[in-house]
Amino acid sequence: MPEATEPSPADPAATVARLVTLLRESSPLVHCLTNSVVREITADVLLAAGAAPAMVDHPAETGDFAAIASGVLINVGNPTSEQIEGMHAAIASAREHSTPWVLDPVAVGGLTLRTDLATGWLDHSPAAIRANASEIVALAGAGAGGRGVDSTATVSSALLPALELSARTGGTVAISGDRDLVITQTDGPTRATWIDSGHPLLQKVIGTGCALGALTAGYLAVARSAGVSDHDAVVAAHAHIGAAGTAAGTVAMGPGSFAMAWLDALYSLEPGQIAELAVLTIADTE
Amino acid sequence: MPEATEPSPADPAATVARLVTLLRESSPLVHCLTNSVVREITADVLLAAGAAPAMVDHPAETGDFAAIASGVLINVGNPTSEQIEGMHAAIASAREHSTPWVLDPVAVGGLTLRTDLATGWLDHSPAAIRANASEIVALAGAGAGGRGVDSTATVSSALLPALELSARTGGTVAISGDRDLVITQTDGPTRATWIDSGHPLLQKVIGTGCALGALTAGYLAVARSAGVSDHDAVVAAHAHIGAAGTAAGTVAMGPGSFAMAWLDALYSLEPGQIAELAVLTIADTE
Amino acid sequence: MPEATEPSPADPAATVARLVTLLRESSPLVHCLTNSVVREITADVLLAAGAAPAMVDHPAETGDFAAIASGVLINVGNPTSEQIEGMHAAIASAREHSTPWVLDPVAVGGLTLRTDLATGWLDHSPAAIRANASEIVALAGAGAGGRGVDSTATVSSALLPALELSARTGGTVAISGDRDLVITQTDGPTRATWIDSGHPLLQKVIGTGCALGALTAGYLAVARSAGVSDHDAVVAAHAHIGAAGTAAGTVAMGPGSFAMAWLDALYSLEPGQIAELAVLTIADTE
Repeated sequence: MPEATEPSPADPAATVARLVTLLRESSPLVHCLTNSVVREITADVLLAAGAAPAMVDHPAETGDFAAIASGVLINVGNPTSEQIEGMHAAIASAREHSTPWVLDPVAVGGLTLRTDLATGWLDHSPAAIRANASEIVALAGAGAGGRGVDSTATVSSALLPALELSARTGGTVAISGDRDLVITQTDGPTRATWIDSGHPLLQKVIGTGCALGALTAGYLAVARSAGVSDHDAVVAAHAHIGAAGTAAGTVAMGPGSFAMAWLDALYSLEPGQIAELAVLTIADTE
Repeated sequence: MPEATEPSPADPAATVARLVTLLRESSPLVHCLTNSVVREITADVLLAAGAAPAMVDHPAETGDFAAIASGVLINVGNPTSEQIEGMHAAIASAREHSTPWVLDPVAVGGLTLRTDLATGWLDHSPAAIRANASEIVALAGAGAGGRGVDSTATVSSALLPALELSARTGGTVAISGDRDLVITQTDGPTRATWIDSGHPLLQKVIGTGCALGALTAGYLAVARSAGVSDHDAVVAAHAHIGAAGTAAGTVAMGPGSFAMAWLDALYSLEPGQIAELAVLTIADTE
Repeated sequence: MPEATEPSPADPAATVARLVTLLRESSPLVHCLTNSVVREITADVLLAAGAAPAMVDHPAETGDFAAIASGVLINVGNPTSEQIEGMHAAIASAREHSTPWVLDPVAVGGLTLRTDLATGWLDHSPAAIRANASEIVALAGAGAGGRGVDSTATVSSALLPALELSARTGGTVAISGDRDLVITQTDGPTRATWIDSGHPLLQKVIGTGCALGALTAGYLAVARSAGVSDHDAVVAAHAHIGAAGTAAGTVAMGPGSFAMAWLDALYSLEPGQIAELAVLTIADTE
């Protein structure tokens, strides 16, 4: 069940820095059920950022593993029939053990199998949903989605669908775009935070968004242990990924050197640098 | 159905440059059904070069997705039973929607499952076949293939088998080697183009050939939209991959730095530089 | 069947250098049945080091392919049902053809499916087992394992379980840790070799240990052809991987640049440099 154990923090940047420190100290175990294209980079991002990845997909193992994991990622990109069974078992286990799980509805809207899956799981209390604008719009039932992983909708156009998804699931919803937007409309007052960070080359390396979904599960785990809200956890994950992108962009010659520098920065940026490079804006949601 | 909508161009290098520009402007969506070893690098190469990748393998989704894709890649390396079902559906859908599809017969010859699959698909009008010499020889029924992805045959020895495959499928056939050779023997006059480019370290990074197959599907899509022949599209894909290899080779210290520089070059080389770094020779096919 | 065709060499470093040379000259074909997270980096490591990788998992192909491979890797991380069938066939074929095969019991202990598989295969004569200390302890039935790929046990604590596994399987056992330990307790005198090399960033790049398992299969193949013991082959694999890690650590800024430099070093370090960078200590096993 999502928690909001403290009021909106006075200093969002300080909360980001605090959560980065906690992530690196506690190295949360993130159980990833993700698509086969991005498993390696997802694991590398979690390791670089300070978390511990484990990809376990077989239905004979996912329930047991989700029970001991700190957080779970369900990414519906390119699933197999057997992995889908494993996802059902992992989600059930995560709920049973109150483990936060993140839904990444890759390419939902355009393809019926994954659209049906992701839509069905909205009733299973994901702690967070992370997606691009087209996917959020499609998941909320308000549009047809993009052409695969591309987003053809703007972040702003996904604002109302995101609010609706948050209210419906009781979880936080994050929209990735030029500026990322994190929205929580649960029991307390609505919270909305814009994150300005990153670099256009993040779109030229496969799996950067998928890895963000995985890291979000890790931040949710440490935030809950520390009594920090899910909303702040999701913001911290975006800030960490985005700030490293900003830093990498200053030295990259193209997507190859960008990916390398991004992994280096995920690992080496100090908490205070991350909080500084990712500019947060608290949106007025009245 | 393969097209040859214009005569052999007067200036092959100018055609390469034009197609590179078109690829980057239109960012064709390439539906990849490829082996699990190279999905990430294949996606990264497509993104760096200017195309949009999507890996969709489940048989419940491949028909629908191939219908909206610009081009389709079928790579038979390390398939699963479920993916094979997905491949059948994707090929049928590609043909129905006149979407160009590329066959990459990885390790055909040595292994019966994939040899039977690839051989059967020769009757399904692939727009292009891309392989090393051993695989071309084996696919044409003229030899036993190499030991996996290695080629033990020379490009020259695969010339006649390639002509035969082109005539039989009505598509273009590309043989990767120290010098690449692209052959088209369909309705018009036979065309054969040698491409001199690349670097030995391309053989020391997994997936460079597989990614070339995927990029070929992207170039076929943009060429057909522009009324350029399939033959020129396949040549352009090889020139783009190879020229980036040549550029990367000048700075690499080994396969790790080569892979990074290669992705950077795929992204940053200007169309004119690509056309210059990849030396084309029109072979006399009389 | 494991062999010990020569006595413990007088100069272990010279044996390492000799085996590195042989690996690069003969480029052994390593058939890898490994987890989907690390297939690309495993292939890249084999290529960089000088071996030839091939990932073949389908049960219709694994028996035939293991028959022509020089060595086989069975890595139980994140298996699928179909791949497990393929593993059974590959192991049977490897034994039938006296091809050395390596068992990597990823996360055994915590998860019953893979624990049952790996335990059952102890009776199928793996030439080597490569794992972290927690996995060795769990595989020997002496503990519960770590939380996934992490090791929570020390290398020293795994010494007796490793001796037991070696005696039981008739193969060599390698424990990865801050210092690696290779143990062989078969027909002749017990051998134990410590390898001091590597860098902490090896733990921050996914698949470095899994790739070591694959490279071990390649070294076993060349060692047997040259009449060198399996023990020395496993030591050489660890020395090659570790020395490249040491070299990469001198230039890395984080895990991204480390991975790149590590691949470069696997490729470019001279045999003598590898033998020098990896410090070997023959343990007293009386």
